[in-house]
Amino acid sequence: MNFLSDTTAPAHPALIEAIARANVGFAPSYGADAVSARVEARLKELFETDLKVVFAVSGTAANALALSVLCPSDAMVLCHDEAHIHRDERGAPEFFTGGAKLLPLPGAHGKIDRSALGDALNQWPADFVHAPPPAVLSLSQLNEAGCAYTLEEVGRLTGPARAAGLRVHMDGARFASALAGLGCSPAELTWKSGVDVLCLGATKTGALAAEAVILFPSVMDRFARLQARQKRAGHMAPKARFIAAQLDAWLADDLWLTLARRANTAARRLADGLVQADGAQLAHPVDGNEVFVRLSAPLTQRLRDAGAGFYAWPDGSARFVTSWCTADAEIDALIAAARG
Amino acid sequence: MNFLSDTTAPAHPALIEAIARANVGFAPSYGADAVSARVEARLKELFETDLKVVFAVSGTAANALALSVLCPSDAMVLCHDEAHIHRDERGAPEFFTGGAKLLPLPGAHGKIDRSALGDALNQWPADFVHAPPPAVLSLSQLNEAGCAYTLEEVGRLTGPARAAGLRVHMDGARFASALAGLGCSPAELTWKSGVDVLCLGATKTGALAAEAVILFPSVMDRFARLQARQKRAGHMAPKARFIAAQLDAWLADDLWLTLARRANTAARRLADGLVQADGAQLAHPVDGNEVFVRLSAPLTQRLRDAGAGFYAWPDGSARFVTSWCTADAEIDALIAAARG
Amino acid sequence: MNFLSDTTAPAHPALIEAIARANVGFAPSYGADAVSARVEARLKELFETDLKVVFAVSGTAANALALSVLCPSDAMVLCHDEAHIHRDERGAPEFFTGGAKLLPLPGAHGKIDRSALGDALNQWPADFVHAPPPAVLSLSQLNEAGCAYTLEEVGRLTGPARAAGLRVHMDGARFASALAGLGCSPAELTWKSGVDVLCLGATKTGALAAEAVILFPSVMDRFARLQARQKRAGHMAPKARFIAAQLDAWLADDLWLTLARRANTAARRLADGLVQADGAQLAHPVDGNEVFVRLSAPLTQRLRDAGAGFYAWPDGSARFVTSWCTADAEIDALIAAARG
Amino acid sequence: MNFLSDTTAPAHPALIEAIARANVGFAPSYGADAVSARVEARLKELFETDLKVVFAVSGTAANALALSVLCPSDAMVLCHDEAHIHRDERGAPEFFTGGAKLLPLPGAHGKIDRSALGDALNQWPADFVHAPPPAVLSLSQLNEAGCAYTLEEVGRLTGPARAAGLRVHMDGARFASALAGLGCSPAELTWKSGVDVLCLGATKTGALAAEAVILFPSVMDRFARLQARQKRAGHMAPKARFIAAQLDAWLADDLWLTLARRANTAARRLADGLVQADGAQLAHPVDGNEVFVRLSAPLTQRLRDAGAGFYAWPDGSARFVTSWCTADAEIDALIAAARG
Repeated sequence: MNFLSDTTAPAHPALIEAIARANVGFAPSYGADAVSARVEARLKELFETDLKVVFAVSGTAANALALSVLCPSDAMVLCHDEAHIHRDERGAPEFFTGGAKLLPLPGAHGKIDRSALGDALNQWPADFVHAPPPAVLSLSQLNEAGCAYTLEEVGRLTGPARAAGLRVHMDGARFASALAGLGCSPAELTWKSGVDVLCLGATKTGALAAEAVILFPSVMDRFARLQARQKRAGHMAPKARFIAAQLDAWLADDLWLTLARRANTAARRLADGLVQADGAQLAHPVDGNEVFVRLSAPLTQRLRDAGAGFYAWPDGSARFVTSWCTADAEIDALIAAARG
Repeated sequence: MNFLSDTTAPAHPALIEAIARANVGFAPSYGADAVSARVEARLKELFETDLKVVFAVSGTAANALALSVLCPSDAMVLCHDEAHIHRDERGAPEFFTGGAKLLPLPGAHGKIDRSALGDALNQWPADFVHAPPPAVLSLSQLNEAGCAYTLEEVGRLTGPARAAGLRVHMDGARFASALAGLGCSPAELTWKSGVDVLCLGATKTGALAAEAVILFPSVMDRFARLQARQKRAGHMAPKARFIAAQLDAWLADDLWLTLARRANTAARRLADGLVQADGAQLAHPVDGNEVFVRLSAPLTQRLRDAGAGFYAWPDGSARFVTSWCTADAEIDALIAAARG
Repeated sequence: MNFLSDTTAPAHPALIEAIARANVGFAPSYGADAVSARVEARLKELFETDLKVVFAVSGTAANALALSVLCPSDAMVLCHDEAHIHRDERGAPEFFTGGAKLLPLPGAHGKIDRSALGDALNQWPADFVHAPPPAVLSLSQLNEAGCAYTLEEVGRLTGPARAAGLRVHMDGARFASALAGLGCSPAELTWKSGVDVLCLGATKTGALAAEAVILFPSVMDRFARLQARQKRAGHMAPKARFIAAQLDAWLADDLWLTLARRANTAARRLADGLVQADGAQLAHPVDGNEVFVRLSAPLTQRLRDAGAGFYAWPDGSARFVTSWCTADAEIDALIAAARG
Repeated sequence: MNFLSDTTAPAHPALIEAIARANVGFAPSYGADAVSARVEARLKELFETDLKVVFAVSGTAANALALSVLCPSDAMVLCHDEAHIHRDERGAPEFFTGGAKLLPLPGAHGKIDRSALGDALNQWPADFVHAPPPAVLSLSQLNEAGCAYTLEEVGRLTGPARAAGLRVHMDGARFASALAGLGCSPAELTWKSGVDVLCLGATKTGALAAEAVILFPSVMDRFARLQARQKRAGHMAPKARFIAAQLDAWLADDLWLTLARRANTAARRLADGLVQADGAQLAHPVDGNEVFVRLSAPLTQRLRDAGAGFYAWPDGSARFVTSWCTADAEIDALIAAARG
């Protein structure tokens, strides 16, 4: 009953097979290989636009690299108070940007409150030399409460941000789960909604270690800078073909969405079952593969005693994460334990 | 006839098999898994000492992480003028250390000249507030001229450095090749010779993407700091078991030395054959899997015409790199082309 | 009627005379002069303890230098949401620390709320590798609402902070005004209350440009590091005697407290008079030389029309700052204008 | 007999008087005052061009601020191996640029060798992602050997640098002395010769603490960024009028050149006299207010015994610095001591 994180899950076998297939003969280093080119072409098709992409091996790296080409060192990133970039990346954004500030904003269910965004834009003006001006709005999709911003919600935040001259970063460590839940197109959820850079994460949805930093046309002129930063940060893998191979297999035949749907379905099953138990109450809507539940103390104890793995979350709830390979039997065992 | 770099070579199949074997069930994230623990234990055995280790996916990352826990931001790293950390890492050491200076030192065959080291230690004293004091001596083994420092040569540099209070970093991107050539023990070539941190690279010797930053006892107290830096730089892989699995297979049954010896033997064959050709002269001793040759213009042209892949080096020579899978036939074809 | 800021005020003539007196013959550079030594001795006497000190020419520099020796680059400073270091220093603390995070905490009247501090210490534990741990608590005295923490209030914050292993920084840009208001000793308000480093500002209380970063015994071992940072940031003045001369005159015969009391008295007069007017209401207690008043729109207009200089503050109030040379006549003119 | 440094000299009284004159009534903070505006206007007249300027209180700060708007963090500054920015600023350029590399180049008499510059431009190409590309050429005028680049020499270095896309920084800590020696116009020695940014130092030529970072039209679009960096580094003085007042008096009636000529004449007298002594030989031409002499051991001892203050220089010579107020009697005493 391991619901600790989707990063504890194994990789999908198709990706390892793809790595083995890519391991033939010599290939140019540092991303100049044929598989990398194929992934880029596939992403253009998928996102219905020209774009530029570099790969990384962790979501933290992808986010920090993206922010480093969007936010000057003396400027500021606006993000949710619970954002992964603020809470869980050991200051990587501050490091990669050379000391930019992250301004945490409040909002229910992990979503930035629109009026809080407006206040921040007013209080931190662009031309005040004494304070770092806001340069980037960062949204997580899924966010840290397991919720997905709807297309309309994305637009209502990116609109005023762009009007104030900010660029928009989307942390898509669980983008596949968000997309699968929302049912819109990748293009609609990103550049058509005002997103400049997407960090598309595969690791949490079945890859070994594969993330893509995607620059949409509005910021494609920063590609050379992004590559330089990638190199400088030690993230330009010498044998890049092995990251590319993972993404190649992940995107083929919509495997990524298949895996995301599987994880989402498991989360739904878990949520529906758990809330039947005495002392369990959903803390947030379940829009993807994460379930946040407020548990009574006795219920918490019962689950722990049964050997269930989950994290106590800072907001007082318990977080259960499902993955592409979470078995129904595991979920049912959890629910059975909950019912006592 | 690809002799561009050992990073263009494929990975050894045993490592991909090890990845597949590790891909079973759930495993703790971020390096807390069983395979990572096994690799650490194996390294202790191999280096005959207690030690601490973190993994990375590029030599640039490994070096920069190591230097970031050895060198304060207002201090200095002494290295060879041709050192990879100085010439080929896009300023990653400067980035990870927060702006430390790299002081390039001269020396034949890629080896730091001892008197140049002495001069540097004299000219940049430890207690002069107006200049960054030397804090680290960095040695590459193999170095950038394809040469290995002998045990005695290592000691003659680490001795005065340590006496002046410096720590010693070894860039071991091709450590296996150096070790195979020298025939000493891993312990002798590192901590017993005054090395505090070794960046042990597997990528160039048969891995997909696996480097180990090893802290020997003299600096093991910096491990928590190293982990924090690893996280902050986006190099703490969520599914670390897949890097560990590579190292596990690489170190098993001395596969790493077998692969290194294979590459070294190929380099020897290439060097011996090439120097028979008119207009070819060795630029440096061949101590590992790299061959630097001064080529006449006609010979260069002949090799290019024959489709040989190699790099023109800044010092005017041509660099040929062999790998664990370089075929004798490829080498012989090169030599045949050279003879015209 | 200029109440914009105490930085728009002239310097006290005694300080310029001291500069002229120090301008005789040759003197050692970079702080090794006799006047600098005299100031250090005077500070030891004043604070009743051994200490170390470096000078700077702006409060921003002093704060950032202080924080740079207290907070590792991958850690965090806890401060009030309105703190000058967070709002008004263009990210200087982030820059000088190499990318540390500032975590803004709420609290009435510019004072950090004690339970908010407790929550932060709980939510950001010291040993969690994925997030920057809190390393410093920063208090402003006077704070940004013009209020002074009482001795008891200081202790109630520094207590739990120190218990959690944090160091304590005090931004004393208006320390003289706070001290004059509280009536305690410099020692009581600083190291005896758990403060490790005081940035003692003279510029806002009558100097041309003079700030002192004072390390108390608990952190005196960081002095060499502080000097290195001072040099590296371009704040080690070649002719340091001219900063020292200012502080020398400022501290002599308690001139600093005399000037602070004068500014405080002026603020009291201004506050007492202004609140008599229709549509004026104190926003915060007046503990020093700053008065924050909520003004009705008509009253604001009346004051602007009369030519009064003051700032609209982000919290909706109006800020009036007095200085050592604010004339009663100016205040009375303001009050008369307010009464219409 | 103090010839240690021009930073040990007092300030010229006219500058202190100017400070006293500026100390009247309230004035806008942070450089928006009338005196600052007057200095800017005067500089435009003097340099015969539009320009932008910010002030700083040390040459280290001025240089680092200038470089921070010219050199990206992942790029490189080319400078002489003995350059102050490389040897004597504790890595301030690395700090302010966010980790740029300084590449030291050789050359006789402190002047960058033209072919060494050419080699560097060839070896570090602009489009090689693996290494920091050169972005800035930095020249010191006077340089660290006390020599001035002639107009032609400046042009022969800035020409190829600009052709390769670099910007040019001039460290003018002793610009007045260089200019006085060369007898050309300020414009000719700077922007007309390909210089983008001049750090004009007054401190070493009679000021208390005043340096000007001057952006010529080619880079004036970086002014907002420069101001932000100035603030972020704590170098935007709250009461800027007191720095401006110094520069105002310094530039009035060509006082700056008068003072520089006085120092240069003293240096000439010192050099001419000293080389008459047995065991003294000029190490470099004397182009300004610094004299480098190779002294025999007995002569060194004789001078030390006589109480002469001078520094042993890393190149084995002895450095004697004169200033605007060096008395002929002091020089003659030194010469007498030398003759024994």
